Amino acid sequence: MDTTHDLRLQCWVASANGHDQFPIQNLPFGIFAPEGGRPRGGIAIGDSILDVGGLVANELLDGDAKAAAAAAAGETLNPFLALGGRYRRALRRAVSELLSAAAAPARLRELVHGAKDCTLCMPVEIGDYTDFYAGIHHALAVGKLFRPDAPLLPNYKYLPVAYHGRASSIRVSGMPVRRPHGQIKTPDSPAPVHEPTKRLDFELELGIWVGLGSDLGVPIAIAQAHEHVAGYSLLNDWSARDIQAWEYQPLGPFLAKNFLTSISPWVVTPEALEPFQIPQPPRQAGDPQPLPYLWDESDQAHGSLDLDLEVYLATETMRRNGMDPERISLSNSRHLYWTVAQMLTHHASGGCNLRAGDLFGSGTISAEDGYGSLLELSKGGTEPLQLANGERRTFLLDGDEIILKARAHRAGFASIGFGECRGTVVAG
Amino acid sequence: MDTTHDLRLQCWVASANGHDQFPIQNLPFGIFAPEGGRPRGGIAIGDSILDVGGLVANELLDGDAKAAAAAAAGETLNPFLALGGRYRRALRRAVSELLSAAAAPARLRELVHGAKDCTLCMPVEIGDYTDFYAGIHHALAVGKLFRPDAPLLPNYKYLPVAYHGRASSIRVSGMPVRRPHGQIKTPDSPAPVHEPTKRLDFELELGIWVGLGSDLGVPIAIAQAHEHVAGYSLLNDWSARDIQAWEYQPLGPFLAKNFLTSISPWVVTPEALEPFQIPQPPRQAGDPQPLPYLWDESDQAHGSLDLDLEVYLATETMRRNGMDPERISLSNSRHLYWTVAQMLTHHASGGCNLRAGDLFGSGTISAEDGYGSLLELSKGGTEPLQLANGERRTFLLDGDEIILKARAHRAGFASIGFGECRGTVVAG
Repeated sequence: MDTTHDLRLQCWVASANGHDQFPIQNLPFGIFAPEGGRPRGGIAIGDSILDVGGLVANELLDGDAKAAAAAAAGETLNPFLALGGRYRRALRRAVSELLSAAAAPARLRELVHGAKDCTLCMPVEIGDYTDFYAGIHHALAVGKLFRPDAPLLPNYKYLPVAYHGRASSIRVSGMPVRRPHGQIKTPDSPAPVHEPTKRLDFELELGIWVGLGSDLGVPIAIAQAHEHVAGYSLLNDWSARDIQAWEYQPLGPFLAKNFLTSISPWVVTPEALEPFQIPQPPRQAGDPQPLPYLWDESDQAHGSLDLDLEVYLATETMRRNGMDPERISLSNSRHLYWTVAQMLTHHASGGCNLRAGDLFGSGTISAEDGYGSLLELSKGGTEPLQLANGERRTFLLDGDEIILKARAHRAGFASIGFGECRGTVVAG
Repeated sequence: MDTTHDLRLQCWVASANGHDQFPIQNLPFGIFAPEGGRPRGGIAIGDSILDVGGLVANELLDGDAKAAAAAAAGETLNPFLALGGRYRRALRRAVSELLSAAAAPARLRELVHGAKDCTLCMPVEIGDYTDFYAGIHHALAVGKLFRPDAPLLPNYKYLPVAYHGRASSIRVSGMPVRRPHGQIKTPDSPAPVHEPTKRLDFELELGIWVGLGSDLGVPIAIAQAHEHVAGYSLLNDWSARDIQAWEYQPLGPFLAKNFLTSISPWVVTPEALEPFQIPQPPRQAGDPQPLPYLWDESDQAHGSLDLDLEVYLATETMRRNGMDPERISLSNSRHLYWTVAQMLTHHASGGCNLRAGDLFGSGTISAEDGYGSLLELSKGGTEPLQLANGERRTFLLDGDEIILKARAHRAGFASIGFGECRGTVVAG
């Protein structure tokens, strides 16, 4: 591991030292707009944001780092993502050095904006969005609701199940969640009605950003797959369960999901998460060996991530009474049955081309005792979730806010956060 | 109907007069590159292509038509599609007049390129691609293979079933179809293998281009839906049936479809197809009335299209022997259970935003006796299709070429064609 993870690094942006989200060891990329300014590339550092393009304009970089910063200076990170790992790593190292320099020049200090004065924007113009289904405890829990005897379908442990999602309706954290209308058919009614969903849900997912693309017809070997991953965000795959139940056969979810998907604004790099790579969780007895195109020794040894994932709920009543949001779920990305490399290799294995700026959702990540959706928390809407203030929830009510958080921590390393992915439900 | 459909119009591009695809009454838009030149917007006219941007540069247009031509002059038609119907119609009228003028100036004549010297390019940068399932005879035929007693699922006649497809792998006519590898599990084997598909198929679909977009959270009333449609192309939704069978539960098709989708290069406008608008085919006894948000009198009266759709197959043997491709299917877009306005309105009904350049596939359009896929033609691979030269096909072999064609014809009106959507299978 390189020096960018050194715990002793001190940053001259004072709030970064000991920051539980954005210490100097993190350095995630995003797009921000300073007050009155145009959107541009930035790096989160403590309570502040570093203007990446300013590093180029002020001749503070050279070589690969300079090229990377120039690519990250515009209104989307796509050109930067497309450059791949070598450039990203060079910029990370250079920024780590600049932000920890004992004597930072004034022209560098002037590139740091207080985050509270900035607007965070969509970091990437998304080409295609693919949603996987790799959270095994979610697949089991949801499967049990419908098929108690055979919760997992036969293909689940052979391939990373996925479907294409809607790119146009992905928004950055903070976008209100307008309760969608849709066709809903209850079992006791002969025909559907068109009305607002009564079973609005969240889904806790990890978002994965594609960097280096691939050509049509050319698969990606699993040993090379990690070089195509540019970073990670949190993703909330808002879902209308009643719309989904009626529409999804035989071709999968459509309007139940495409009214909004929310992502957290920062792209946390694979380099920042390097200390939190863990072996793929051991298969259980009877689980099949992945087919050779999905199997790589190094991926088995380091391909999973140890990342705590949390879901908080703030109801209107809680806010009115000055209460903090209540944590309703704690999970971890280690509960993904498939690694990101396996997802990516499978995606390209038939020849489908990937592009810089494509987004994957991991699928809902539940733990055995930490569910990533209300569908699971309320056992299909049959057992309301009991909140500490006496309120209960089967599904989301207008005014409810869902906040997703992620944090990696490990002894000897700085804690790495993702920021937040927020959304408040409003009437449709 | 305006004068652009007048049968008496004579065009000074001589090949246009009596042309069965691109007479002056058609005027479809596309992107072409003249030999050695950059890609640019063009209009097909007879055996030639008119350079749209050149009309602006040579001051041959004004007002809305000039603005429309300027928007269609670049490397994609997206800016032109985004302008909506008023500008498109103004440009159509102006070009119809210019091309039928008795004394066309030399600077106009110089803007016409021989199509055989030009390359046709992707006409649009596609945002999101959505594939519907609105061909009722296809849904019935495929449903019968799996569920003889209940071929249609209960939702089919209440909503236009659709799923999100892959935009990155859509290519213009002519792109070879590389036989994809994928996981395939036969009923008698305990586990899947990863190998080239043995059941490669085509699907005959109509492609629908979105023009005017919509905002997130804002539905589109069905009476306004037609204003969001910018035009039509042919679409071949190449499919690997064995990969599909193993992967598609529970979230729909993924790698079975995303290795390639082909489209024909010309965007045929709603104005060109106006004479071929027909009432929506009558519902059968027992069919439900569409819910109010999907019901519009005008759409019922004019919302379907009478458009002959053909599939031709050319095998390697046929080509070697100098034989013409054999027509293996004749269908018609009137066999869509849902109108394009119903598809579009349903898509936006939950709040999903549409963008200029989004593409819909109609779903496979089969007639009762003209099947739009080999899955149907060979009854699920059990009864090979017999070709005139003695060859037989269940699914596509390497070297097979599929050619989709579309043509509208009606007494008193010029015949309108779409050009072709071609693809030849090559080994994976």
